[in-house]
Amino acid sequence: MAWTIDSYLTDCRQVVEGELERVLPTADESPAVLHEAMRYSVFAGGKRIRPALTFAAAECLGGSRQAALPAAAAIELLHTYTLIHDDLPCMDDDDFRRGRPSCHKAFGEANALLAGDALLTLAFETAAASSTAPAAIVRVLATAAGSRGVVGGQVADLAATAQQADEATMRFIHEHKTADLFRAAVEMGALTARANAESLAALSAFGRACGLAFQMVDDLLDADNPDDHSFSCVHIMGAERARAYATTLTTEAMDALRPFGDAAAPLRALAKRLLERTS
Amino acid sequence: MAWTIDSYLTDCRQVVEGELERVLPTADESPAVLHEAMRYSVFAGGKRIRPALTFAAAECLGGSRQAALPAAAAIELLHTYTLIHDDLPCMDDDDFRRGRPSCHKAFGEANALLAGDALLTLAFETAAASSTAPAAIVRVLATAAGSRGVVGGQVADLAATAQQADEATMRFIHEHKTADLFRAAVEMGALTARANAESLAALSAFGRACGLAFQMVDDLLDADNPDDHSFSCVHIMGAERARAYATTLTTEAMDALRPFGDAAAPLRALAKRLLERTS
Repeated sequence: MAWTIDSYLTDCRQVVEGELERVLPTADESPAVLHEAMRYSVFAGGKRIRPALTFAAAECLGGSRQAALPAAAAIELLHTYTLIHDDLPCMDDDDFRRGRPSCHKAFGEANALLAGDALLTLAFETAAASSTAPAAIVRVLATAAGSRGVVGGQVADLAATAQQADEATMRFIHEHKTADLFRAAVEMGALTARANAESLAALSAFGRACGLAFQMVDDLLDADNPDDHSFSCVHIMGAERARAYATTLTTEAMDALRPFGDAAAPLRALAKRLLERTS
Repeated sequence: MAWTIDSYLTDCRQVVEGELERVLPTADESPAVLHEAMRYSVFAGGKRIRPALTFAAAECLGGSRQAALPAAAAIELLHTYTLIHDDLPCMDDDDFRRGRPSCHKAFGEANALLAGDALLTLAFETAAASSTAPAAIVRVLATAAGSRGVVGGQVADLAATAQQADEATMRFIHEHKTADLFRAAVEMGALTARANAESLAALSAFGRACGLAFQMVDDLLDADNPDDHSFSCVHIMGAERARAYATTLTTEAMDALRPFGDAAAPLRALAKRLLERTS
């Protein structure tokens, strides 16, 4: 069978879901409600894009999917915690996530807050179990996720939604809320394959550009939803410029992959798919 | 000057606060409100008991305070995040902490939630910067802090406050909400001193017993506060039995230190001080 990005994504999803299944306690373990809430949000039908980036980055450098597995699971656990906390009433106050009640709607606000805290913690426990470069992987994940990364982006996003924002603010938000985690996904995969500094920098540039394009496309897709009033690049720069910029960023991402030749085919196909997706 | 536990605690506090000052971004870095909120809660006059346990455990095995410094700062960052999230309206809904407005009262609920998230993340970033055994230290911290540790204890605590609870529930809560972090503080210090398995197990038993006694004393001290309606061992077993049990646990903690002779003097003095404290 010919290689396709769809079968690649399906394979990655199955592999990472096996690991998520393994590291997440079941409701047999007390407190049952906490473990149920964690699993409810982790197994909610996510596309597992960030783990696929981790695998593809590792494979691009000749690393194995097996070695990248803890890092891939960790990035997805961390991503899930951001969704749970984002949906809380004091944040975006979203009652639904992927067509189902959001975690706090299903389990109550305190349990959702704590399920998010536990998933963030489990992300680091899982990353630290990597057989290659565990401390470096934890540091990359923590730097991307912390106040200089995702959390900083969230704070800026909340402030921007409440007031008039400019293009510089938009760039700060996209860089940190989204691109930092894409970059970390790729860097963690590269570290599991013992990347040298040059390869790490090239893949990091790919991850960043890919993440910025992803957020542009996200905002463009959300712009068709009249109920969505969250901060969006479409309000700042208009749909046409946003679409053009997403394409430019994807080209930038592809350029960063030039040193890797055919080994980067899955990364290229992922970047292309993320640009062209319709959901 | 004769060695006293007061001077020991003061020294430890100064050393760990230097490191906390170093690892925490200032409000000069964007988003200012986030970094202000993080610092507001970290520098709120805490006694830094957990870092002192980390230092004392390291020194008990001939390790240095310098090598234990990242672990000591990490445990305090993690402890501070638990306080911020505990105080949130959906949790204990406390307007005050250490005589000042709690984080969400001072900075708003979303910023407090995110400041807690960022401190938890920074705890792992800091732990991973340890020059000795960083991955093992991250794993100890994450296991103690996660759904099988502190977060699990919090969920049980919230459920117990809302209903009649028994002694088994109380033990589960004390074990996880409090003792797991004390145990981690001591184990992390021991790991920075390259502890062997036997020493690690003995110090772990010390940390656990010390943490259980600490929570008993906390509940006894809070029992004098008529405004406090949170879950307490005093309601379950009465003040007299609780006091006796705290003493038994402290003796158990002291017993675990027997192999270490004079090197464990600071750990002994800490356990004694935690039992006899009045605030």
